[in-house]
Amino acid sequence: MGDAFGDANAPLPPSRGVLYGVGVGPGAPDLITLRAARLIEQAQVVAYPTLAGAASFARAIAADLIAPQTQEIIMDVPMSVERAPAQAAYDEGATRIAAVLDQGQDVVCLCEGDPFFYGSFMYLFARLSDRYRVEVVPGVTSVTACAARAGRPLAARNERLTVLPGPLPEDELRARIAGAESVAIMKVGRHLPKIRAVIEALGLTAQTVYIERATLPEEVVLPLAEAPEAAPYFSMILLTKGADPWL
Amino acid sequence: MGDAFGDANAPLPPSRGVLYGVGVGPGAPDLITLRAARLIEQAQVVAYPTLAGAASFARAIAADLIAPQTQEIIMDVPMSVERAPAQAAYDEGATRIAAVLDQGQDVVCLCEGDPFFYGSFMYLFARLSDRYRVEVVPGVTSVTACAARAGRPLAARNERLTVLPGPLPEDELRARIAGAESVAIMKVGRHLPKIRAVIEALGLTAQTVYIERATLPEEVVLPLAEAPEAAPYFSMILLTKGADPWL
Repeated sequence: MGDAFGDANAPLPPSRGVLYGVGVGPGAPDLITLRAARLIEQAQVVAYPTLAGAASFARAIAADLIAPQTQEIIMDVPMSVERAPAQAAYDEGATRIAAVLDQGQDVVCLCEGDPFFYGSFMYLFARLSDRYRVEVVPGVTSVTACAARAGRPLAARNERLTVLPGPLPEDELRARIAGAESVAIMKVGRHLPKIRAVIEALGLTAQTVYIERATLPEEVVLPLAEAPEAAPYFSMILLTKGADPWL
Repeated sequence: MGDAFGDANAPLPPSRGVLYGVGVGPGAPDLITLRAARLIEQAQVVAYPTLAGAASFARAIAADLIAPQTQEIIMDVPMSVERAPAQAAYDEGATRIAAVLDQGQDVVCLCEGDPFFYGSFMYLFARLSDRYRVEVVPGVTSVTACAARAGRPLAARNERLTVLPGPLPEDELRARIAGAESVAIMKVGRHLPKIRAVIEALGLTAQTVYIERATLPEEVVLPLAEAPEAAPYFSMILLTKGADPWL
């Protein structure tokens, strides 16, 4: 298992708890996996980050599964362009989680989508996986959820799929999209005007869909040309150049 | 909702059944979503393709959820390099599914991983979504499942993720991997020697993991240097050049 379980010659004390990084999927509570649901329901301690005191989306997705007596470890990350405050928040969160694991109790960390796909869980993984057993439970990502809701197959046969973060510089976005087949652009938010200009300049607007809050009641699915001026953080752009669904 | 529901000016007859394309995840039965599990348990008709009479992996994943009296529509795709025999199999399968939908009954099509991510469901979607209501239920893909099992975060912050099919020509694989950050190579199988040579030539072997049958009891996770000579179809290569898990 390599990285996840540290040095095979140094077995971990069996009395320690296990840290579970659990993907809760893209938003609809019934897109949680059976395994994740069972772990959350049985958890005595759950953990999740929040941003500047705002509500946690991951916790909201899993809310109906969390028992009333469950202890919650909240890592509040301050809003800042500096890295140090966020690092301090994850350092402190890792210390609090480690204290629970040392008592032999498991901790279930709730992650939107999938823990290893643009998720903050990897910051806890980096801090704790050398000393504790960590199990990652994969989840449905927003990429396939958006494709499902937009009715757009992502990739077939020998097609390529490229996932790009919206904050990338305009020149890099243009070059990456031009050389790609299917493209999913994550974290659109305030980068929508820049992304829209790049796709328009490449003549690809007609093949592009804008999706926000996929699988939630307030979901929006629109052709890019009809997308709003302002996009929320949980929005995505899907561009399918290849993805011919006919065999 | 665009493509998935056809022309908004021509409402579909409400008496027709719904075709569900349901992702059953990467292999472990408890990585099925709550929604998919409910649909499969309640299904009166399930459908899935098989290859030259072999057992269906998607059906095996969902086996414990399928009620004994459930009708099964099996689309057997003959082994052939030609496209016409497979096209005929999906044409015939679509006709049989349409007959059930016309009787007002729903059909739940079982798909390994996610229906729109290298899945054969899109061949049925292309044949039926103009005349019937189709709902796609996204599933956990093998990409995030392999990352979870290998303990390798896929992408963080502004990193890119590229998904490549193993059958791509050697030159193209080399160019795409050289220009990428994190890379997931699907459908490795008999292409393993070619892929290994490309990664070795790029000096990236030490950062690369080989995974087969992720999340199943017979799972294998190895550094690429220790991968077997012969790989099964359900194997993957993960290469993480970026994906620094530290914040």
